[in-house]
Amino acid sequence: MNQDTVGTEQWHDLAQQLRVDSIRSSSGVGSGHPTSSMSAADLIAVLMSKYLSYDFDDPENPNNDHLIFSKGHASPLLYSVYKAAGAISDEELMTFRTFHSRLQGHPTPQVPWVDVATGSLGQGLPIGVGVALAGKYLDKLPYRVWVLCGDSEMAEGSMWEAFQHASYYKLDNLIAILDMNRLGQTRETMDGWNGDHYVARAEAFGWNAIQIDGHDPEQIDEAYSEALEQAGAPTLIVAKTKKGRGVSFLEDVDGLHGKPVGADQEQAALDELGSTDDLLVEVRKPDPGSGENFTAGLTGKLELPTWEVGDEEATRGAYGAALKALGGAREDVVALDGEVSNSTKSEEFAEDYPGRYFEMFIAEQQMVSAAVGMSVRHRVPFASSFAAFFTRAYDFIRMAAISGANIRLSGSHAGVSIGEDGPSQMALEDLAMMRAVHGSTVLQPCDANQTARLV
Amino acid sequence: MNQDTVGTEQWHDLAQQLRVDSIRSSSGVGSGHPTSSMSAADLIAVLMSKYLSYDFDDPENPNNDHLIFSKGHASPLLYSVYKAAGAISDEELMTFRTFHSRLQGHPTPQVPWVDVATGSLGQGLPIGVGVALAGKYLDKLPYRVWVLCGDSEMAEGSMWEAFQHASYYKLDNLIAILDMNRLGQTRETMDGWNGDHYVARAEAFGWNAIQIDGHDPEQIDEAYSEALEQAGAPTLIVAKTKKGRGVSFLEDVDGLHGKPVGADQEQAALDELGSTDDLLVEVRKPDPGSGENFTAGLTGKLELPTWEVGDEEATRGAYGAALKALGGAREDVVALDGEVSNSTKSEEFAEDYPGRYFEMFIAEQQMVSAAVGMSVRHRVPFASSFAAFFTRAYDFIRMAAISGANIRLSGSHAGVSIGEDGPSQMALEDLAMMRAVHGSTVLQPCDANQTARLV
Repeated sequence: MNQDTVGTEQWHDLAQQLRVDSIRSSSGVGSGHPTSSMSAADLIAVLMSKYLSYDFDDPENPNNDHLIFSKGHASPLLYSVYKAAGAISDEELMTFRTFHSRLQGHPTPQVPWVDVATGSLGQGLPIGVGVALAGKYLDKLPYRVWVLCGDSEMAEGSMWEAFQHASYYKLDNLIAILDMNRLGQTRETMDGWNGDHYVARAEAFGWNAIQIDGHDPEQIDEAYSEALEQAGAPTLIVAKTKKGRGVSFLEDVDGLHGKPVGADQEQAALDELGSTDDLLVEVRKPDPGSGENFTAGLTGKLELPTWEVGDEEATRGAYGAALKALGGAREDVVALDGEVSNSTKSEEFAEDYPGRYFEMFIAEQQMVSAAVGMSVRHRVPFASSFAAFFTRAYDFIRMAAISGANIRLSGSHAGVSIGEDGPSQMALEDLAMMRAVHGSTVLQPCDANQTARLV
Repeated sequence: MNQDTVGTEQWHDLAQQLRVDSIRSSSGVGSGHPTSSMSAADLIAVLMSKYLSYDFDDPENPNNDHLIFSKGHASPLLYSVYKAAGAISDEELMTFRTFHSRLQGHPTPQVPWVDVATGSLGQGLPIGVGVALAGKYLDKLPYRVWVLCGDSEMAEGSMWEAFQHASYYKLDNLIAILDMNRLGQTRETMDGWNGDHYVARAEAFGWNAIQIDGHDPEQIDEAYSEALEQAGAPTLIVAKTKKGRGVSFLEDVDGLHGKPVGADQEQAALDELGSTDDLLVEVRKPDPGSGENFTAGLTGKLELPTWEVGDEEATRGAYGAALKALGGAREDVVALDGEVSNSTKSEEFAEDYPGRYFEMFIAEQQMVSAAVGMSVRHRVPFASSFAAFFTRAYDFIRMAAISGANIRLSGSHAGVSIGEDGPSQMALEDLAMMRAVHGSTVLQPCDANQTARLV
C-alpha cells in the first residue's frame, strides 16, 4: 500500500498486522510489552502509511522525518513497523530481545532507523524538542519530528520542560502523539481517560491540542492533517486508546503491563486479530530539501586563546573564550546553557553566534536532551551550567551514553570553589557521577591554557 | 506588631525593614541576592505578621506551619524574617555568608527553623508536597505548608510533578506563592509578567490560582485569606512583583541577579527605603492540634522473614517481606514507590498498610522529594523504584544529604540483572552515584536473608 491509495480498510488491516507482530515477537521470546504496543497500532498505521516521510534505505538523509518512541517499551510495535516497511525481515523480527539481536527490549541506535535510545520514560519528547530545534533553526529543513508518548510518562517533569520549550521556540515541526491507554504498570494513571486534562495542560503551555479516538483511523487521519497545518506552535494529539486493543482478553485489562501473551493463548489472540502478516507499506521518501548546508569539522582556522605565565584567568573564562574561537572555526558547533551563561561564560559564544546559541533556562533535563537531539543532526553541542546542576540531568546523561550521542557537557564552579554560596551550589559528586557513565571522558583542567586546549 | 492589629501601614514598614536588612546583610559580606529578596518582601511581611502560625521557641512543635523558600537564594529575606520575629539578633544577621555562620548563602537545617536545604531550584515545592502529605494523611494536623517560589524555577519539570501530585492528593494545606519578578539571572524568564500563563497551567493541573499585585498588602492579605478557605485543592498565588523593589536604581533592572549593593550605593538605597530596622513581629504560635499521635521507633515486635539454605528468593522479594514486617513493628515507617511496586515488591507493604503507602507514579524527583518532606515530620520513608531510575533524582538525593534527611532509597534490578530489557533499565552507575553522596550509606545485599536484615 502507498500514501496515495491508502484508506480506512487498509489502515485497519495494517494496524492488525502490527498487533499480530507485536504479539508474535514478544511471545516468541517470552518477554516484552505487547499490550502497550497494541494500543498505539492504529495511530502508527496511519502515520507510517500516509504521513511519515522517511527513506529506510538512507537513514542519514537530512530530509527524513524523525520518529521517536518516547514510550520505548512499545518496541515490539516499532520493530513491527520496520518489518511492514520492508526494512527488516520477519525472521529478524522474531530475534526480538534475544542475545546479539539489535532488536533490544528498548530501542537503541544500534538499529539504524532509531535516532536515540529510549526506555527511561519522559526522555523521547525532550529529545524530540532538540531534533525539532535543529530542524527549524539549524538545518532549516521541512522535516517533521513525530514523538509517540505514553500517558504514564506524562507524570515526569521532563515532559513539561519539553512542553514549555517547544512552545517558547515555536516548534511547529513537532507533533506529539499521546497514547492515552489509561493503564500504567500497576494501576490507572493519575488522569485515566480524562483527555480534557491533557488538552488543558498542553494549551496552557502554548500548544495546539486535538482530542480523538485513537482507534478510529479517520479521526487519526484528520488529526495528523490538522497538525501539519499548524503554524507557530507544536501540536499534541490526545488519543483515547485501550491497552491490548483488539484481543478480548487483553483489552483494557489491568495487570498485563510488560507481559507477553502466553503460548497457550497466543493462537487465540492471533485468531481474534485475524489478519495476515505480510502487508508491505511503501513509506514515502522525503522530497529533497533546500535547507542550509553545514560542514562538519573545521571550516576555518582555529586560533585558541592563550595566557602567559603570570596572567590570571578563571577556567570558565578560558572556556568561554575557547568556545567562541571554536565557534568561528567550526560551524557545526552549537552552545546551550541553563540560564547561567554569564557564570559559565558561554555568553561569549552567544554574542558572536546567536543563531547557534540556545537558551534552555533553568531546565537542565531539557538542556541535555536538546543537546542529544541536536547531535542526531550531527551538530556538536556544548551544554553548560554549574557542575552541581548536571546532577539534575543524570538519567539523561546516562541514556545519552546508551544513544552514543556525541555531546559536550561543561560544568563550572567545580568542587568547593564557590565558597560562600554554600553546598547546594558545589559540585562534589560530579566526577564520580560522570566517570561512571559508559563511554564518557572526564576532563578536569588545571588552568586557563589547559581549558582552552581541552575545549 | 501582632496579628490582631496589623494593617497596611505596618505591613509597608515591615516590608521595608525586610528590604533594608536584605541589603545590609548582603552588602556587609559582599555577596548574596538582595534584589531577589526585595521582590518578595511584601508577600512575606503579610504572611509572617498575620497568617503564619509558628513557635520560634519550639521549632519541633508538631502544630507549627512550615515555611519553605523554594527560591533559596532569597536567603537574606528569610534571615531578615528571623530577625523581625526575634529569633536571631541583628548582630547574627550580619554574619550572613561568613565562615562558621549558620546563615549560609542558601538555607540549610543548620538553622533550626529551616526544614530542608534549598538552593538547587525547583526542589522546595516538591518537598513541600511531602510535608503537606504528612500533614494531611499521617499527622492529620491542621498546619499549613507555605512555599515561596521563584518564577525562573517554574521552568524545572520537578515543579510540575509537584503541581500534579499536590492536586491528585487534594493538598488544600499547601499554598505556593509565586514571586513573579520577571527577571532571571541573565535575562527575562520565558513567561515574563504573563501571570495568565501561570494561572492557566496551575488550573489545568487542578489547583486554585489567584493573581495579584505582589506589592499591594491588601491584595496579598485577601489572597491568603482566600487560600485558607479553599478545600480539596492546593492554591497558587501568582504575585506580580519587581526585582529590587523599593530602590529606584535596583527596581526591575536586568543584570543585578546575585549582586549585593556596593558600599558606594548602600546608604542611598537605605535612604530610599527610609525605614527603621528594629520592628518586631509577634508571630502567632499555633493552637495545640488534635491529630493522630505516632511513636517513633519500635512499637511492636519485629519478626523479620528468613529463608533456609536452598530456598530461592529474589532480594526484591525479601525487601518487600521485610518492609512489611517492619511496617508492623514501627508506625513511623512509610513507603513510596514510582509506580513499579509489583517489581520492587513494596506492594506487600501497601497491601497491609495502605494508609502509610504513597503512590508517586512515574515521577522519581517527586518521590524522593516527598520522602524528604515526610522525614521533616519524623517519618522514616522507604522509597523504591528500579535502581537505574534513581539517577533521575540525583540532584534531589544530593540536596537531601545537605538537609541531613533520614530517608531510605531502595533500588531493585541492580546491575545487568534485568537482562533482555536492555541497558536503559540497568543500574550501572548507581553505586558510584550513591557512594559520592555525603553521609550516605550504600548497602548491597547478596541474598534474601541479608536483604531482610539490612532493611
